Order: sequence, then C-alpha cells, then structure tokens
Amino acid sequence: MPKKNAFYAQSGGVTAVINASACGVIETARLHKDRIGKVYAGRNGIIGALREELIDTGKESAKAIAGLKTTPSGAFGSCRYKLKSLEENRAEYERLIEVFKAHNIGYFFYNGGGDSADTCLKISQLSEKMGYPIQAIHIPKTVDNDLPFTDNCPGFGSVAKYVAVSTKEASMDVASMCETSTKVFILEVMGRHAGWIAAAGGLAAEQQGDAPHIILFPEIAFSEDKFLKKVKASVKQNGYCVIVASEGAQYKDGTLVAASAHTDAFGHKQLGGVAPTLASLIKDKLGYKYHWALADYLQRSARHIASATDVEQAYAVGKAAVEYALAGKNAVMVTIERGTGKRYNWSLGEAPLSKIANVEKMMPRDFITADGFGITEKAQQYLAPLIQGESYPEYRNGVPVYTRLKLVPVEKKLEKSFKV
Amino acid sequence: MPKKNAFYAQSGGVTAVINASACGVIETARLHKDRIGKVYAGRNGIIGALREELIDTGKESAKAIAGLKTTPSGAFGSCRYKLKSLEENRAEYERLIEVFKAHNIGYFFYNGGGDSADTCLKISQLSEKMGYPIQAIHIPKTVDNDLPFTDNCPGFGSVAKYVAVSTKEASMDVASMCETSTKVFILEVMGRHAGWIAAAGGLAAEQQGDAPHIILFPEIAFSEDKFLKKVKASVKQNGYCVIVASEGAQYKDGTLVAASAHTDAFGHKQLGGVAPTLASLIKDKLGYKYHWALADYLQRSARHIASATDVEQAYAVGKAAVEYALAGKNAVMVTIERGTGKRYNWSLGEAPLSKIANVEKMMPRDFITADGFGITEKAQQYLAPLIQGESYPEYRNGVPVYTRLKLVPVEKKLEKSFKV
Repeated sequence: MPKKNAFYAQSGGVTAVINASACGVIETARLHKDRIGKVYAGRNGIIGALREELIDTGKESAKAIAGLKTTPSGAFGSCRYKLKSLEENRAEYERLIEVFKAHNIGYFFYNGGGDSADTCLKISQLSEKMGYPIQAIHIPKTVDNDLPFTDNCPGFGSVAKYVAVSTKEASMDVASMCETSTKVFILEVMGRHAGWIAAAGGLAAEQQGDAPHIILFPEIAFSEDKFLKKVKASVKQNGYCVIVASEGAQYKDGTLVAASAHTDAFGHKQLGGVAPTLASLIKDKLGYKYHWALADYLQRSARHIASATDVEQAYAVGKAAVEYALAGKNAVMVTIERGTGKRYNWSLGEAPLSKIANVEKMMPRDFITADGFGITEKAQQYLAPLIQGESYPEYRNGVPVYTRLKLVPVEKKLEKSFKV
Repeated sequence: MPKKNAFYAQSGGVTAVINASACGVIETARLHKDRIGKVYAGRNGIIGALREELIDTGKESAKAIAGLKTTPSGAFGSCRYKLKSLEENRAEYERLIEVFKAHNIGYFFYNGGGDSADTCLKISQLSEKMGYPIQAIHIPKTVDNDLPFTDNCPGFGSVAKYVAVSTKEASMDVASMCETSTKVFILEVMGRHAGWIAAAGGLAAEQQGDAPHIILFPEIAFSEDKFLKKVKASVKQNGYCVIVASEGAQYKDGTLVAASAHTDAFGHKQLGGVAPTLASLIKDKLGYKYHWALADYLQRSARHIASATDVEQAYAVGKAAVEYALAGKNAVMVTIERGTGKRYNWSLGEAPLSKIANVEKMMPRDFITADGFGITEKAQQYLAPLIQGESYPEYRNGVPVYTRLKLVPVEKKLEKSFKV
C-alpha cells in the first residue's frame, strides 16, 4: 500500500480538550510512519484545505505535541464553515481534490460536531463521486453533547465539570450573603438546543435543598408563572435561590426567553441573554436582589478544571480515528460506548456518518424531574462519571503552561489561490 | 488574667479564602484555652451579635475546622451592615455590650474590608466610650485589594489568579475562532472603584501581542474614541482583541460606562454591565462579532483555582489576629508586609484602625501603561507573587469537597430580641 499523508482539522466551537484529540491523532500517526507520511493540519479547519494553508505537524517536537493534551482551544485554528452540497458548489470539491492531490493526502480526520460530521461525510464521498481515493474519519467534539450514537461527546465532560464546580462555589457565596443582600443567583450556560450543559449544574447538589434549585432546559417550555412560584418557594425555604439557565431556554412557541425582552418597571427593555432577562423579571415581580453570571467562553476553555475522563476520551477518539483509517474504514465517526455494570467503563465504537450529520440528541424526558426544573437520579447516573477526575495542567508563574506550536506552514504547490 | 470568650464574624462580600482566616482564628484560639474560652461566630456577621445569634465553633471537630482552609464563601454567613456612629444609634452599641457581657466576650475579631474596618474601630472604642472592656482586631479581607497599609488583601490573590487564568484560556479560544467568527472578547470583572482585579488579567500575557490587548480601569477616564481605535488596531494586528473590563470603568465625569446606555443601530438601549455596553458599541461602530463573559460571583468563590500564597496569607492573618489580641493589642488591623529582595517574601504587621476605615487604595498611575490600556512591568512585579501556587481542594464524585459546619447555636441568654 503506498504511503499517504494525512489531513487533520478542527471545526466549530473549540473546547478544553479538542487538542487532546489532535494529540491522539498525531502521536498515533507517528507510530505508523510506514503507512502515514506527514500529518498536515488545516489552518482554521477546512478553510486551510481550501486555501492550501497547511501546517506541517512534523515540525513540532514530541514534547510540544504531548503538550496539546493539556492545552485548551484549537491549536491549529478552527472555523465555522459548512461545505455546500456537491451540486451546489462543485468548485469547492474540485479545489479540495486539487489540494489533496498536490500534497498526497489520503486520510482526512475532521474534529468537530454535527455540522462538521456533515462536512466529513461529503469528503468521504469524494472517492465515489469524484474518483479521488480518500478515507474520511470523523472525530467527535462538542461541548453541547448532542451528537447521536455516541454515549457522550469529548468536550462535554469538562464543561460539565466546570459548570458543576462553579454552580457549587457560587451557590455557597450566595448562601453566605442572602440574609442582607443577594437572594437570587443565575448562571447562564451554553446549550442552544439541548440542555446537557445546564443539567450538569445539577451535579453541584449533594443533598436535599442544595443548589441549584432551578435548572432551565431548552427541552422544557418556560412558564413565567411556574418559574416565579418556584423562585419564591426556594427563597422562602432556603433563604436564597440558585438558577442554572440554558441559553436556549424557551417558551412553548419556541421564542427564546433571552429574546422575550422583558420590559421592567421603568419601561426599559432588557436585552441580551437569558440570565439578565430572568434577573429583571425576578426583580420586577418578586423584588429580590440578584446577581448573575454569564460564563460564555470561560466554560468551554477552562482546561484548568478539565475532567480527567474527558481528556482521556478525547485523546482516545483521536487515536482510534487513525487506527480506523489504517484498518481501511471510511465515512464513520468514532463513538464512545458505555459499558454495563455498576462501575463506569467505556470503550470505542463507530457509527456511519450518513446517520449522524445534522441529527441532534436532546435530553430524554426522564432525565428531567416531573416539574421540569431539575435532573433525575437517572440523569445523575449518566452525567456523574463524565466529570470524574482532575487533569491539572502544569503552572508557571501562577498561570497554566499551555503549548504554543510553531505552526510551520507547508510550502504551497498550487499556483491558483482560492477565495473562501 | 480572667479567661474570656472570643467573637468572630465575617463581613461584606465573601471570598475564596475568608474561611481560611476563620480557620486561622479558631485553630489558634484552640491552642490558648487558658486565655480564650469559647470562640463564638456571629451568624451573618455583626448581625449575629446584635440578634444574639451566636454559633459555638467549639462544637465543630478539628477536621471540620481544618476543612475551612479549602472551603470558599463565608461558613458562618456574612452581611452588608455598617454600624452607625455612637451618637446616631446608641441603642445598637448598648445591645452589643449586653450580648458581649451575657456571653463573657472579651475579644472581637472582625473579618472584612473597608466598611468592616470601620465597624471594628467602633467596637474597639467600647472600652473607652462605654466602659466595656474589649479588644477588637480587624482581619483584612477583600477581593478588591483596596485596603491601605497592607501590601495586599487576602481574597485578592485568588480572584487575581482566577482572572489571569480565565483571561488566558478564553483568549486562546477566541484566537482559534477569529478567522471566521468571534473577533472580540470582553471579560467583565469586579472592582467598582479600584482596578486591581482587572489589572490581574494582564498576568495572562507572556509575550508581546498576547492577550489581553486592552484593560479598562476605573482609575483611567474612558474615551470611546481611543478605545475603538485600539480595538481596531488589535484586530488588524492579531486577528482578534481581548478586553478585560473593570465593572467600574468610567468616563471622565464619573459616569459609569455600564450606565452609559449605548443606543445601538436599532434604537435599543443597552442596559446592564460594562461588557454588554462595550460589545454593543463595538458591534455598532466596527461591526466585529463579539462574545462577552461576566464572571460575577464565580470569580470570588473559585476556591478550585485559589492562589496558594493567598490561602497561606489568609490563614496567617487570622492566626495573627488572635496572637495580637493575646498580646494586648486593640483597634488594629493585621497587615501583610512585602519584604525587599528579589525573591518575594512577606511578614505580618499591624496598622491602626483609625487610619484605615473608609480609605481606598487605588492602582498607582505607574502601574498602568502610558496609553491607559495595560499594566506596566512594575504592576506585574507587584501582582505576580500574589497568584503563585495552586492550592487544590479535595474532590469527590468530580466536584470539590467543601466543609459543611454543624453551626450549633449558642443558647440565648437575653430575654429581649433586637430588630436589625
């Protein structure tokens, strides 16, 4: 079998552990130099392939590559870019083949979420539809945890741990202050369509009455009335109320709570996220003093508090992608499968990309309590193993030491540039 | 010398390490049982004394008390409550004396910031003005780092470390995404009057061009024009721009940026904090895609990423307060003094409360770069030692194990209640 080069790229929103997958790909490829020549990374995802902006990972030391395992963000740059269908934009596919051919690329590893699975699927079809031989393997990654077939998605465990820890810590702060000051605290977290991240806030609670007292999921229609009643009851019972709200929390008709633009007593329209909207509503209707936090990128980049389980799985799916390719597979995503038995255990599997692209996995109804404001025992059993273990980075001068790659560009071979 | 009991209370906004000071007080008092009888904690700060709601710390095991060293928030509850002057509200002071007398309290340890120093000063004067013998020692605590005389304030080092680490991590995220998506990221941090916390964001930068590219301090008048130019230049040069903004950032006339209610292109008034206001301004004038985060309570409760130096100092000031009291001191605050020499070293000192109450220490001008948007080498040298070392809590089931005290109430001895 002739030696081929590999292309690896990162796509969509980055995570605390996507670089651990990159590390798995590159380290594993380096063990198979007889079959895989160079590993080229796309600068900014698939755009790097279109623009022929490739990075030669071979120029990075073993130490630098190993450092990726503890480095958040996308070391090669990511992108939000979805390939159109072959019929809609044939030029893009022709360009990709040109670039792949010029650099002798026979393996395509794409590290991303649902949209990226779609891109990866399209690449996997190049052999059949355009006659260019290539194997495309998808490496799952998304903090949203919404990919089907896989038990969970690398990136999620770490954001879940961040949210659980932060909810616990901030709740203790509010509990200290509630007698004379803040009575309600709202943490807004990511998750536009699925409530997995918000659900992780529930792991902060150890016993009855513990925060969070309310979790808002996109899957459950928001009722202002029920919500306010619950806030009031919680303040009455515990002295305070902690809410973890998914950015995607919505009314029955699909209107986002964040977009409902609650008008307060002064006639001001509250713009922005779900947290300030809820805060304004609470202040206005119940008069409680509030604080709110919007974790935004902090939650998905928080490598300092990454889940060791997540890091391990992120590395493993990268490693497996290379092994699958060497085994001749194409058009599949690496999946994580949960074993049976009391003690959490997992192994790797695969699923066909044709069934994954553009499918979102929501929280099952039986993961959410009957009143819609909390997580069930079943959800806890699912979530808890994913945040196990601490994988601390090294520190220097009080801040983490994160790898900086040299990012040496591969010399371009094509004359034409390509506008993306 | 007759044996007296001690009163300890937490005041104002809590921190990741105020309980370490409580631990220092209680553990040290337990070593001097010949002189200090019980240590009673006020439930919710000074309010606990006024209401005769005391907690018997003697009912807590040595293990539980030791656990306070790694537990954020205020374990006994805090309050925002400032005693009026003796002339304005004599009844309060009479009540305090009644309670102190009933419980044989001769030592008063108050753990807080500037307002609390004022309360502590007033208590220290009870001997002289009301004939009740008591020694009052102030234990410094404030994330704002704005107390005078002390080189730094316990609580600050940990929030500084949180902000430095978070800025670094989120910046790497933005750097990965900026080619096709977010170009500007804003992190809003605490600090209404002093820019110390925002300054700590500057510790994320290791080399020229590193984020954060802009820091906004309350001490520097905000200029929309200069700010927008700097954002544009940073995006042009680095591809992205990261801003750490103090909630207290303000215009020359003292108007908060947060309150400037920027009206966007759609005629919407942007309410809320400084981050959304800046984001809206940038979107409107420069058109960049942005993200922003508001850390709020997350930053000051983040015990999981506490500075080891901070934890050590917080414990030490608690311990010293007891030792000062036993040495006969009154009306002083424990201070942290920085030693000379290349290697950071510190020792404890004291300052008279009469000079501390209601004085705020701002960032010196030479800690801020000439353009007003960054920190100088001098500031780095001051700040860096304060975030050194990681002091990780224990974890169970993926989340930190934080101490829960039993909080056993002391039986009330007074018939009358007191309305606070």
